[in-house]
Amino acid sequence: MRWNLPSDQVPEAWFNVIPHLTTPLDPPLHPGTRQPIGPDDLAPLFPMALIGQEVSGEPWIDVPGEVLDVLRLWRPTPLVRAERLEKALGTPARIYYKDESVSPAGSHKPNTAVPQAFYNKAEGVPRLTTETGAGQWGSALSFACSLFGLECKVYMVRASYQQKPYRRVMMETWGGDVVPSPVDDPDHPGSLGMAISDAVRDAATREDSHYSLGSVLNHVLLHQTVIGQEAKRQLDLAGERLPDVVIGCCGGGSNFGGISLPFVPDEGVRLLAVEPTACATLTTGSFEYDFGDTAGLTPLLSMYTLGHDFIPPSIHAGGLRYHGDAPIISNLVRAGRVEASAYPQSKVFEAAIEFARSQGPIPAPETAHAIRAVIDEALAAKETGEEKVILFSYSGHGLLDLGAYDDYLHGRLDADGAPTGS
Amino acid sequence: MRWNLPSDQVPEAWFNVIPHLTTPLDPPLHPGTRQPIGPDDLAPLFPMALIGQEVSGEPWIDVPGEVLDVLRLWRPTPLVRAERLEKALGTPARIYYKDESVSPAGSHKPNTAVPQAFYNKAEGVPRLTTETGAGQWGSALSFACSLFGLECKVYMVRASYQQKPYRRVMMETWGGDVVPSPVDDPDHPGSLGMAISDAVRDAATREDSHYSLGSVLNHVLLHQTVIGQEAKRQLDLAGERLPDVVIGCCGGGSNFGGISLPFVPDEGVRLLAVEPTACATLTTGSFEYDFGDTAGLTPLLSMYTLGHDFIPPSIHAGGLRYHGDAPIISNLVRAGRVEASAYPQSKVFEAAIEFARSQGPIPAPETAHAIRAVIDEALAAKETGEEKVILFSYSGHGLLDLGAYDDYLHGRLDADGAPTGS
Repeated sequence: MRWNLPSDQVPEAWFNVIPHLTTPLDPPLHPGTRQPIGPDDLAPLFPMALIGQEVSGEPWIDVPGEVLDVLRLWRPTPLVRAERLEKALGTPARIYYKDESVSPAGSHKPNTAVPQAFYNKAEGVPRLTTETGAGQWGSALSFACSLFGLECKVYMVRASYQQKPYRRVMMETWGGDVVPSPVDDPDHPGSLGMAISDAVRDAATREDSHYSLGSVLNHVLLHQTVIGQEAKRQLDLAGERLPDVVIGCCGGGSNFGGISLPFVPDEGVRLLAVEPTACATLTTGSFEYDFGDTAGLTPLLSMYTLGHDFIPPSIHAGGLRYHGDAPIISNLVRAGRVEASAYPQSKVFEAAIEFARSQGPIPAPETAHAIRAVIDEALAAKETGEEKVILFSYSGHGLLDLGAYDDYLHGRLDADGAPTGS
Repeated sequence: MRWNLPSDQVPEAWFNVIPHLTTPLDPPLHPGTRQPIGPDDLAPLFPMALIGQEVSGEPWIDVPGEVLDVLRLWRPTPLVRAERLEKALGTPARIYYKDESVSPAGSHKPNTAVPQAFYNKAEGVPRLTTETGAGQWGSALSFACSLFGLECKVYMVRASYQQKPYRRVMMETWGGDVVPSPVDDPDHPGSLGMAISDAVRDAATREDSHYSLGSVLNHVLLHQTVIGQEAKRQLDLAGERLPDVVIGCCGGGSNFGGISLPFVPDEGVRLLAVEPTACATLTTGSFEYDFGDTAGLTPLLSMYTLGHDFIPPSIHAGGLRYHGDAPIISNLVRAGRVEASAYPQSKVFEAAIEFARSQGPIPAPETAHAIRAVIDEALAAKETGEEKVILFSYSGHGLLDLGAYDDYLHGRLDADGAPTGS
């Protein structure tokens, strides 16, 4: 069963979790002075509207009409009950997923790419720069820039640029200009932190350009809250009250924040962030101030981190290979409101195949982390007989990640790192 | 704007166009005797339920509940008004598309793969064989077999097998067993006609196996009529009466039949089939009896054909590279009820890029043929000022065809044939 909402029910305000935090967020610090930064420090990189949202304490923030017009191309996204998966597992749990894979870029990322492109356009900025790892974010920003008539320059982690030519072509189809990163070392496979440095440096040195980030920051998570808000209404239509547990994969935190933050005020709803053991920021990192990028150009953020020079093994879930985590998610984990768990990629692909063969769709490797945790929650419910309600974010499809499936199906996947022999 | 229907509004009967044809269909002939074939001749290849549907004169045929249960995983599919494309073209035409790309296999093909798998399962057949060119059909049947617990063997045109590894992996993810065709000549690039021969030979020589065809036959087009039926209801919700013109790309005819056949009784609604100039069956072929495959193993069908030994240039729209056309579509073209036009692939990709950059989604090369014709109809309406209503089938996404976009964007695409230099 699927529950759709009509186009006019895309949420018209974003849900701001900041007033609901039990401990306040630590302020970002200037990378040079290590003093709290102000709006002027961020103005070379971001439009004022987004800087305002970054620090806003308002409980709800209006979505501009021009943004709604574009979101309505694919939103509200369907809420689907995974009845065939339930049956395959023999669980009494009821499993629902929010299908964010239906966006033109194939993931949740356009939810923030569209407002970011809009606000930059509105403030007269004709060109955006960004980085991309697996390519989900670069695709989303290229798509959004195409609709608003902005130039888009994408610094793509070199290993992905070489291994995932289809992602590059997708960005180019929407007019994006894609180059491998790091730009100054053609022999280096690159990392997300390095690509951020390249993109920030580009934007900071050109008058006509701003920088755009696809995760981590408060305003990015804010834009993603349309996911959880819609899911609440749809669960109501499905005859459920509240879910017992909300599950999402977590790299920088934008997908997990999108599905979970609107449930933060609902005490009794468990919130579970799932990450790869190869880059287990929330479960094994330290909570401290760290840079967002490798070169130390970005402000210092208070977050769980593995260290800004940490280079994770090249697992296939490229979107989860970030050394840090969103300050909002880190705050909630530290406060005990959000739980976290980690899985090795062999267990993750096992879950992906089980989902595809029972339910149908082929998930992104990132999304499959959530599915692994969902299956384990559902099997635990089978043991106890509990009719648990599980909600998860189906953050993206795996159609541009089939090389990873090929490795798994033909025994070339290392349990927890790169493909064997590569 | 998008119009969704709830899951319980998947059509519960298929629309049979046969009673609406002004001239009767010519019967299929036995490949040996050249006499009309009977049910017994087809029994080694197909279940009796499908043989019955192939010759049925009933105006409506019930969809089994078990089939509805699976179709409801993604159906009803959205009807979308392409307002951003309209605006980019500056046309007074209103353009609607039926988005069949939302199925797990990414195209309209599962609409018939699911009932075919179901009827075989119901009659105790544990294994299906089929052929695939671009991979859309093989993916759909692998998906359907996975849900019903059947084995699936796919003979994939060797050139596609080598050029499109992601399609193979997609089939394998759903458990399909994929081999390159022709099986007896590892140096031959293959063709759809040859792959049909391989798949038919396999099924005919094994007790446990039936054969499954993804287009051309009456029962296949019948199953696809859910598309046009839903579109009618959704156009009504959108406040339109009937479209002025219905457009679909046409290879074997299953996509075009799906969107257009329910409109055959609606006089005044133009129906336009679009094909590639490289394989222009309806616009340049002869109407005569011909084999469906290269080796001459299948019954002879009365249809437009370029000859069963015709090997089209290797254009990127692999799903439109078939020498013949469905007898039903051929009959309607000959009777003047359906129009046909043909485009070279350079003009087709130009339209695909225009659609992606204005509206968002990246279409399959096959689908882009329809989009080319839609744009030309909309531009003609701009000349005349006519507020024409255009409906087309968005038969599939292009996410596994990005190599074709890469060739186009980087000037490696021959205007009407293979990539240059290949």
